[in-house]
Amino acid sequence: MHELVIKGGRVALDDDFAECDIGIDEGRIAAIGTGLAGQSQLDAGGHWVMPGGIDAHCHLDQPVWGGAGNADDFESGTISAAFGGTTCIVPFGMPGPDMTTIGAVDRALDRAAGRAVIDYGLHAVVTMGTGSDVEEQLAQLAGRGIASVKLFMTYQGFAVDDDLFFKILDAARGLGWIVMVHAENDAAIRRTRQRLIDLGRTDIRYHVVAHSETMEREATHRALAFAEMTGARMTIVHVSSWQSAEEIARARTRGVDVVAETCPQYLFVGAADLDRPGKDAARFVFSPPPRSPRSQEHLWRELIDGGIDLWSSDHSPYFFADKVGRAETPGFTTTLSGIPGIETRLPLLFSEGLVTGRLTLARYLDLTSRKAASIYGLAHAKGRIAVGLDADLAIWDPTARWALGHAALHSRVDFTPYEGRNVTGKPTTVLVRGVPVIADGVLRSQPGFGRFVPRTAADPAQSGKPVEETTPWLDA
Amino acid sequence: MHELVIKGGRVALDDDFAECDIGIDEGRIAAIGTGLAGQSQLDAGGHWVMPGGIDAHCHLDQPVWGGAGNADDFESGTISAAFGGTTCIVPFGMPGPDMTTIGAVDRALDRAAGRAVIDYGLHAVVTMGTGSDVEEQLAQLAGRGIASVKLFMTYQGFAVDDDLFFKILDAARGLGWIVMVHAENDAAIRRTRQRLIDLGRTDIRYHVVAHSETMEREATHRALAFAEMTGARMTIVHVSSWQSAEEIARARTRGVDVVAETCPQYLFVGAADLDRPGKDAARFVFSPPPRSPRSQEHLWRELIDGGIDLWSSDHSPYFFADKVGRAETPGFTTTLSGIPGIETRLPLLFSEGLVTGRLTLARYLDLTSRKAASIYGLAHAKGRIAVGLDADLAIWDPTARWALGHAALHSRVDFTPYEGRNVTGKPTTVLVRGVPVIADGVLRSQPGFGRFVPRTAADPAQSGKPVEETTPWLDA
Amino acid sequence: MHELVIKGGRVALDDDFAECDIGIDEGRIAAIGTGLAGQSQLDAGGHWVMPGGIDAHCHLDQPVWGGAGNADDFESGTISAAFGGTTCIVPFGMPGPDMTTIGAVDRALDRAAGRAVIDYGLHAVVTMGTGSDVEEQLAQLAGRGIASVKLFMTYQGFAVDDDLFFKILDAARGLGWIVMVHAENDAAIRRTRQRLIDLGRTDIRYHVVAHSETMEREATHRALAFAEMTGARMTIVHVSSWQSAEEIARARTRGVDVVAETCPQYLFVGAADLDRPGKDAARFVFSPPPRSPRSQEHLWRELIDGGIDLWSSDHSPYFFADKVGRAETPGFTTTLSGIPGIETRLPLLFSEGLVTGRLTLARYLDLTSRKAASIYGLAHAKGRIAVGLDADLAIWDPTARWALGHAALHSRVDFTPYEGRNVTGKPTTVLVRGVPVIADGVLRSQPGFGRFVPRTAADPAQSGKPVEETTPWLDA
Amino acid sequence: MHELVIKGGRVALDDDFAECDIGIDEGRIAAIGTGLAGQSQLDAGGHWVMPGGIDAHCHLDQPVWGGAGNADDFESGTISAAFGGTTCIVPFGMPGPDMTTIGAVDRALDRAAGRAVIDYGLHAVVTMGTGSDVEEQLAQLAGRGIASVKLFMTYQGFAVDDDLFFKILDAARGLGWIVMVHAENDAAIRRTRQRLIDLGRTDIRYHVVAHSETMEREATHRALAFAEMTGARMTIVHVSSWQSAEEIARARTRGVDVVAETCPQYLFVGAADLDRPGKDAARFVFSPPPRSPRSQEHLWRELIDGGIDLWSSDHSPYFFADKVGRAETPGFTTTLSGIPGIETRLPLLFSEGLVTGRLTLARYLDLTSRKAASIYGLAHAKGRIAVGLDADLAIWDPTARWALGHAALHSRVDFTPYEGRNVTGKPTTVLVRGVPVIADGVLRSQPGFGRFVPRTAADPAQSGKPVEETTPWLDA
Repeated sequence: MHELVIKGGRVALDDDFAECDIGIDEGRIAAIGTGLAGQSQLDAGGHWVMPGGIDAHCHLDQPVWGGAGNADDFESGTISAAFGGTTCIVPFGMPGPDMTTIGAVDRALDRAAGRAVIDYGLHAVVTMGTGSDVEEQLAQLAGRGIASVKLFMTYQGFAVDDDLFFKILDAARGLGWIVMVHAENDAAIRRTRQRLIDLGRTDIRYHVVAHSETMEREATHRALAFAEMTGARMTIVHVSSWQSAEEIARARTRGVDVVAETCPQYLFVGAADLDRPGKDAARFVFSPPPRSPRSQEHLWRELIDGGIDLWSSDHSPYFFADKVGRAETPGFTTTLSGIPGIETRLPLLFSEGLVTGRLTLARYLDLTSRKAASIYGLAHAKGRIAVGLDADLAIWDPTARWALGHAALHSRVDFTPYEGRNVTGKPTTVLVRGVPVIADGVLRSQPGFGRFVPRTAADPAQSGKPVEETTPWLDA
Repeated sequence: MHELVIKGGRVALDDDFAECDIGIDEGRIAAIGTGLAGQSQLDAGGHWVMPGGIDAHCHLDQPVWGGAGNADDFESGTISAAFGGTTCIVPFGMPGPDMTTIGAVDRALDRAAGRAVIDYGLHAVVTMGTGSDVEEQLAQLAGRGIASVKLFMTYQGFAVDDDLFFKILDAARGLGWIVMVHAENDAAIRRTRQRLIDLGRTDIRYHVVAHSETMEREATHRALAFAEMTGARMTIVHVSSWQSAEEIARARTRGVDVVAETCPQYLFVGAADLDRPGKDAARFVFSPPPRSPRSQEHLWRELIDGGIDLWSSDHSPYFFADKVGRAETPGFTTTLSGIPGIETRLPLLFSEGLVTGRLTLARYLDLTSRKAASIYGLAHAKGRIAVGLDADLAIWDPTARWALGHAALHSRVDFTPYEGRNVTGKPTTVLVRGVPVIADGVLRSQPGFGRFVPRTAADPAQSGKPVEETTPWLDA
Repeated sequence: MHELVIKGGRVALDDDFAECDIGIDEGRIAAIGTGLAGQSQLDAGGHWVMPGGIDAHCHLDQPVWGGAGNADDFESGTISAAFGGTTCIVPFGMPGPDMTTIGAVDRALDRAAGRAVIDYGLHAVVTMGTGSDVEEQLAQLAGRGIASVKLFMTYQGFAVDDDLFFKILDAARGLGWIVMVHAENDAAIRRTRQRLIDLGRTDIRYHVVAHSETMEREATHRALAFAEMTGARMTIVHVSSWQSAEEIARARTRGVDVVAETCPQYLFVGAADLDRPGKDAARFVFSPPPRSPRSQEHLWRELIDGGIDLWSSDHSPYFFADKVGRAETPGFTTTLSGIPGIETRLPLLFSEGLVTGRLTLARYLDLTSRKAASIYGLAHAKGRIAVGLDADLAIWDPTARWALGHAALHSRVDFTPYEGRNVTGKPTTVLVRGVPVIADGVLRSQPGFGRFVPRTAADPAQSGKPVEETTPWLDA
Repeated sequence: MHELVIKGGRVALDDDFAECDIGIDEGRIAAIGTGLAGQSQLDAGGHWVMPGGIDAHCHLDQPVWGGAGNADDFESGTISAAFGGTTCIVPFGMPGPDMTTIGAVDRALDRAAGRAVIDYGLHAVVTMGTGSDVEEQLAQLAGRGIASVKLFMTYQGFAVDDDLFFKILDAARGLGWIVMVHAENDAAIRRTRQRLIDLGRTDIRYHVVAHSETMEREATHRALAFAEMTGARMTIVHVSSWQSAEEIARARTRGVDVVAETCPQYLFVGAADLDRPGKDAARFVFSPPPRSPRSQEHLWRELIDGGIDLWSSDHSPYFFADKVGRAETPGFTTTLSGIPGIETRLPLLFSEGLVTGRLTLARYLDLTSRKAASIYGLAHAKGRIAVGLDADLAIWDPTARWALGHAALHSRVDFTPYEGRNVTGKPTTVLVRGVPVIADGVLRSQPGFGRFVPRTAADPAQSGKPVEETTPWLDA
């Protein structure tokens, strides 16, 4: 007799659906089978029981750097995530100016506590300014359940130089951490931005020129070469172009342990959207920018084939007025980069990938929860429907047809790039650790129910070998 | 209260191991959970509970074509398979001279009935001589649970020409079948064999020259181009060289739906073994032949990365005396090609892949049972530990250290290429549909317990588009 | 005091133009310099002095195979060539039904004698029906100044099977000959042609489907794999698609000695031309067919970069009425394949490649005469402006702007695919062995002035190594 | 009647040898032909008349940066070059500390004047410290016959950052200059060097680890991506590894106008030479370091196929005592990088490439003089044997067999990495502008005979298009 049994659903068991029940005790999955009995029951008849999604790349309540602040804090952000079928997020301990990496994590923990309605981890972040004692800071955070660190190769104030990049990689490798990299060449962006301004080419459409595929490919190749030399594990976040995807594929043939992440906006928004009239184009400004059909098709193929590992939102919540600023006609230099997406992430892929049959169930699960768990050290508790793991579940109505639109969504952001887009499939009931956060479409959880989940680093002994420990004559 | 519960094992649940019980009713897995109760129990403490293996490429009791007959029939062959942790095989309805494709399947069904101790399906086979009504024959077999057909691009009497190749592909595509291809260029082999004889280069080592990587690559590229043109699904069986693997990777980027299979002998035997003194080299003669270290390393990487889908045995059982024939000094032209392997297939990969950590559990399961089930139409019943599927299970002692050797194996073949090789991990108890075929290392099942499993074809509507249905101007 | 001096021209000296004179004695270039004196002089002021073109792929006066005969014999064909700036051709000794390879060469020599106005060599041709004693026939022809042999992988009656293909390669390698290959997969074309007929898709536009890029790529890869195994040299004639070009590039990295040829129709005609209304589309039917913009761009790049070695016409002269036959609406199955081009070959590339600066002079010369000479054994006499070589020269007016059109051309064929196309540059005076064949746009030579040029085979010792002579263990 | 006629030689006329005479007037080639008459004659019977070599990458009399100074000034350096068959060099206007780019060119011009025995141009060099007004400086130098600029991606004090790199590229593109790049990742080298020191791995053999192929590949890819974005032309100097060569090949498929240079030491010295006992290994220390057999073979193939454009010496002359310094056992951190090679450059390739037949004459000429002339703006005067060009000629005895060794060479450097290596072929008489610098092996010229040759920049209108001028939507 289990505390709770979810009955009669079509359950997403890793590789295939099964018609069976799930028994839950003490917040964990205790049994998967037929005819299970429970003190209370939750009828999932006609519905699909999916593992709760994990969104390993999203931004909430970050410090302001001279621009506008985030529209979502941990309360509105996690509520929005939950309505989208997500039960765990890993946002960033993003440093403000003059903050250390540890200070930034502490700040984010403080902001999250008492606000989140679903569970969360945190990625550390290193910038040029977060302190030269990067090894010490990361080592301290390792003892506090952090297992990953992000760096930026572009953005003034954030971009690390090659020397600091190597320091981070060497430190991460020693700790079994993975390094997340925003890969775009900074000098190239600055140069080209200025040249476009000089040429008077400042329409929003030129955003794709200022952040070209070549600039992304260059930084991706460089980052992967550094991973190759140091033996560190690396995620290339928000891969947007076929050229970067190709670099990742090449790096894998060299034995580099690299994770590829993409986001819905690289599949469902295209460069042509930047050519929409008036302020409308501003809804599609994010970096790297939307790309060509060739890149979109390439990414779809890699979603199918497994070249892409992670499907994250890169939720970057700004109010539209903050985004376009005071410019009469918004241009690429005046528009704030970033779009919301924490709630639309899963419905888009559920509808266009899973329901259409383009993706197998296994690939869908890999992309939306399973690989995030294994890559970022959450697999001991999260990511799958399996005995012993947290009962983080989303019950989807696979036939519900609805229109995405910011009115129907729960982020505080007042626009969405997907306004009016119809999708099939909607999460109706969402459980975290066996407790309904959302039940039949109604929020049930209180801010603060969500907990910080300490993550587990990989065994550093399993990392790649740094170049200095290789045998010189085998450098063939 | 289940009929049988397997308790206390470390259970291989698709993506990860879980410490839990398995409840079995009416031959099927009814529940996976903790604290399950059963009328009878099987203690798996300290052991790993794995899904039974599926070997989708093996030869048993085939008609003789002027050479020697198979040493194993369905009884000795399936017993050997079971001792190796395999619970389902898909051998071939191989035609003898003047036999039709249907006749060959009927013959194989007749030979299997009453003999097999584990379940089995059958692949159809088309050769130049099995009848021009190939479409009709395959359609008839589709109604009888066959869903795949093999063809050979080489071997006198077997090799199909390009016209028949296309007929098979078009027919298979219409039925949702997959086409298995032995890819080597026939004319090239014949030419080179004769030239080697003319040069007096007939030592066994020249087997790799007569069956060079280039010959395999040519046929692989041609077969994949045909798949591309017809939209048919295809397995390239026994991929032995990096060059063929590369062609497969390229075909995938073109959208070809291709499955790659390799076999233990391409990882654990190398071309250098053909240089062993005396008759010893004959133990390593099979086609395609063992390859260079570069190919071995490439295949290892693809096992890890997912480029290879299937790990099959290509069990081709001949007595050693039949294999070497009457030649004083066996040469590559006098030695019969083919080696046993149905029992060593899983222990080799369990030991060298899973125990060493080189392969994740997910990759190991894909290679040994899961993908064979989904590719060949067995996923409704076989291939995973999941509620509703047949309780085909192998309980392994993960610490048992033992030496492979023909005395320790159960095939009637009197040699093994792996003689003396130590491995870690051994299946001790093996269940088919919940019934122990082997218990604690002792055979318990009777010949005839094994059943024919009808297989399910794919939906032809999901196949690729043949070239004649494409829009001409898009041929870019 | 030279017999003849060409004065004041801009002379194309291999790598760069030079303002200088050319002294000619006994039909050969005796000096290149300034201030040369001659018994007679030819003023080339304001003009470019180019080496006469060599067209190594053209068809003249061939035997009829049930369709229509060639509109051009050696008289009209060589006159047309000369007006296009070409001073040497290498057409085929094409066998008719039941003819041997030697018989076909004899027939062609007989047809050429007394008719040609410029010099010529001949390629031998082997088909399935030209006799099993291919080695003996080629060896005999080697003694008579033939140094190359062509085979077809498609076309009923012509297409050789893989066994004969290998025989030809082995024989050619032994003689230092090069093998020219028409690479398209025969079975694929036949299959697809029939399927298109069954679907009622017989418009001319379906020609590109019945001869798809994949079919060409397959045959190209196969031919190159055979070259790799035998060590023979090979020309892939009329490369039309980027996919075939890519296979050639890959083969080169494997050490295959392969020559790539393309033709004007693959650059200046596109698949879209097959969609023109009515009978007009028939003007663009040739095989392989015109391709997509991607392939056109790729070939342009390879012309520039050196991936393509030869620019030939594949002149296949048919009267338009013969070409379209009796069909009311011509379809791809009823239209005869082949177009004229012997006279437009050089003006098109001169105008679009050389005058525009897209090609360096060195590349232009490689493509139009120099490489044909070195590849096909004419370099001892032809192909460049260099001391000691035949004074085969074409003096071009680089500013003449004129419209291509069959009325302005000299072939007997009554159409051209380039009707109305404007080009810049025209040969006005053309010399063969120092004698004007055309002077100031007027034909001066008599039929029979043109001579057969015996060609020189390469040193067989410089050929690649066949697989059977390689060391087995190095097959990595 | 020419002033001078070279009679009876086998003359290297671009694509093939011809038996003919060369008439020279006023220092230029006036005629090429047979039976030329001259006021004086030079008998070249039995010898090969080659264009004088151009060495576009060598270091002479550079300012000292805290280490040792160059052993060769413009006198000893150009004498050594001449004895090696080279008639023109393009060394660097290398800045010392606190010098501008212009100042460095002035200094080099000053050092060269009155000393050189052969003609010379100069490359400009930009480092982090040569001034922020790089555009102005380069523009001024353009007016003074400079047409190329070099930058370093590594070496403290030299390495430019990405911002300056872009400034140089943009400026060079505007002037039609080509940018020469030493491509190694600076941060990677510094990091790894320190780690090797920490591990106590400081033997000379670790030089290849501290300068790994990956580090070179990274910088090469980055540089080429910058060329792609800016449309600038670029030479990757001293390509040492197959990985960098592969990046160059890939960049070409993207339309990047890139020149690849390699040096004799990457073909004739291997990584294994760094493992020689004692101080002997120091003779092979240069950067990038000698590489693996795979890279050596790859570079040979590209020399043959045309992937490599230039064969330069990177002559970096240091006395051996300066090179090894005061270390008891020289390690990779204590040994000065650089080797002599200005005199051995041509004999090595003549012997191993041309005499052996591995290279065609055309490729040999491309590599040794012809492409250097066209790439670096010397083609109006130098690089080929052609009417109108300077009579810069080297007459080689193609049968002379001699041993390389520093005693036989004319540089002041007291070692050579090729000590004792036998070669076939030796320049005996060398003319610059028709005047013998060396005659029958004896120096005849006086210091100061050599002149500065102003070079011609390319037409900037022919450069690639920078990204900011492209149409945004075509970024596919």
